[in-house]
Amino acid sequence: MTTTLTPVIAPPDHAVYAAARARSDAQAKPVGSLGRLEELAAWVAACQGECPPRALEDVRVVVFAGDHGVAAAQVSAYPVEVTPMMTHGILDGHAGVSALARAVGASVSIYDLGVTTLAGVPDEVRRFHIGPARPIDHEDAITEEQLDAALAAGDTIAAEAIADGAQLLIAGDLGIGNTTPSAALVAATLGLRGTDVSGHGSGIDDAGLDRKVAVIDRALDRVGDRAADPRQRLAALGSADIAAAVGFMAGAARRGVPVVVDGLIASAEALLADALYPGTRAWLAAGHVSTEPGCALAQAHLGLEPIVDLRMRLGEGSGAVMSVAVLKAAVAALREMALLADL
Amino acid sequence: MTTTLTPVIAPPDHAVYAAARARSDAQAKPVGSLGRLEELAAWVAACQGECPPRALEDVRVVVFAGDHGVAAAQVSAYPVEVTPMMTHGILDGHAGVSALARAVGASVSIYDLGVTTLAGVPDEVRRFHIGPARPIDHEDAITEEQLDAALAAGDTIAAEAIADGAQLLIAGDLGIGNTTPSAALVAATLGLRGTDVSGHGSGIDDAGLDRKVAVIDRALDRVGDRAADPRQRLAALGSADIAAAVGFMAGAARRGVPVVVDGLIASAEALLADALYPGTRAWLAAGHVSTEPGCALAQAHLGLEPIVDLRMRLGEGSGAVMSVAVLKAAVAALREMALLADL
Repeated sequence: MTTTLTPVIAPPDHAVYAAARARSDAQAKPVGSLGRLEELAAWVAACQGECPPRALEDVRVVVFAGDHGVAAAQVSAYPVEVTPMMTHGILDGHAGVSALARAVGASVSIYDLGVTTLAGVPDEVRRFHIGPARPIDHEDAITEEQLDAALAAGDTIAAEAIADGAQLLIAGDLGIGNTTPSAALVAATLGLRGTDVSGHGSGIDDAGLDRKVAVIDRALDRVGDRAADPRQRLAALGSADIAAAVGFMAGAARRGVPVVVDGLIASAEALLADALYPGTRAWLAAGHVSTEPGCALAQAHLGLEPIVDLRMRLGEGSGAVMSVAVLKAAVAALREMALLADL
Repeated sequence: MTTTLTPVIAPPDHAVYAAARARSDAQAKPVGSLGRLEELAAWVAACQGECPPRALEDVRVVVFAGDHGVAAAQVSAYPVEVTPMMTHGILDGHAGVSALARAVGASVSIYDLGVTTLAGVPDEVRRFHIGPARPIDHEDAITEEQLDAALAAGDTIAAEAIADGAQLLIAGDLGIGNTTPSAALVAATLGLRGTDVSGHGSGIDDAGLDRKVAVIDRALDRVGDRAADPRQRLAALGSADIAAAVGFMAGAARRGVPVVVDGLIASAEALLADALYPGTRAWLAAGHVSTEPGCALAQAHLGLEPIVDLRMRLGEGSGAVMSVAVLKAAVAALREMALLADL
């Protein structure tokens, strides 16, 4: 582990959380009548260490892109060429997450951690390029050195975004085949098998799902007891892009900035972030729950309740983006509603 | 019934709905991966009669305020003086719905249909004042003449908002005691009793809940078979503010403008709007589901699935407001995402 990564993450400010709940209870409304908005606003306040919380004006999605060797086993409905194509879609602002983020006032950037062939993108996009993940049913996805580089890259990306004013961060994913390593990471963390955590991902048929389950089970069997160690688990079953997002989430938490977790890939990353850097989970909210079965399992393990459930499974951070307006509005209510005493 | 109110509402455009689904399927994403966003965007397109749909830029909450005679039976945790106080809160922009609506880019206006004492408000707010609802366990809430005036008022309010550019409308409610007549309307429509539809509303204790159930059952027994007729049901168990919101929803639907339904009160209004003006339901989406049991029952009866569930029970239209960002983002995705053919 590099020396810049502190293993234990201090929690959000409990006293500020209590003050925010008290402020909410003193507002001109029946106590508790804003439901989850009251909890979410208090959580943001506790993360910021300030009550009332500052308005959420700078929300950023960072997409981590990479190729996955398991794609060769036909676990996805799409060819690997889609990954560079969608990278350009995000850079051009025509991807799903681009349109949704614009609608809720969030920005989107993208880093290539492991896309094999990617031409015509700004140098910044490839600044942290490490390399594609090897097929996890045959060998470890990345080396320990690559793991350290990826974790550090994610930490740096979080640090730079926060220094630039980010108040709320979302890790998005891009990479054909990436629900397979993510589901494998959830299974390995929770002691489950491929069938428990696997869904149709981008839209594979039942035969594709069988292949996916088999790949995950072979990977779990190959790694065996090594999976008990979160670093070995992440290097063996993950990828550079997944590890970078793990470092990004922990890096945000360590610096006091909350993170909204997207679907299966991000929920797997959140599991690993909290395993590697205990305490990270307190800085996380589940933005949505996807239709992939491993997603809800991972979120439940972390004690996270999704803010919305819109049956989405696009990836790219798009589901988490759908909760941004809820968080912004929750904070606005805590800031702007009259207090009973002022009426 | 006044001659301006046509009883049958034509549906949104099925061909445009199909075109919108086809466009979504042709976008650069796995088919169906945006889940409910795809359905909601196609519904908005069908309501507008245009694919791609126009961006949702003008969303308006209209709050209908009134006093309810049942409040004297202590069915609410708050005194009736809170209704004029909260009217001022909405006019001042410090109410819950005000803060939430600002956060999602919606506007809020308010009309007093039946607040007994309301001073210091613009004349426009009282333009459609009819009078408070009489206690429904003892007598009909409003007369047939008041019913017609209230339905026409809501229709006029919708017509004026639409002429002014409104693209999406929300009916909010304000009035101490108003979950009691709303729950009674749900029970009468669905053939249920007070205990099936009643919750703690603004925060009454169990004794208060018992009083509320008893008021509803007495009202249902008093009205008897007359409740089978939706006009008689609404006049006997509702109020001027509730009837105006019924006219508002139907008026929006008749003019081709979609409506997002809030919690219990709006869901009861939606039931009556669809009963009086069949076909209205096709122009409605359930913005949220509240914690009041009658809300989910009414929505299920109408075939509406709530967009978000944030355990809210504030009223004022606030829950529906929380779905506005989802609808805006859904429309943005259908408008702005690349088509596969264009890549």
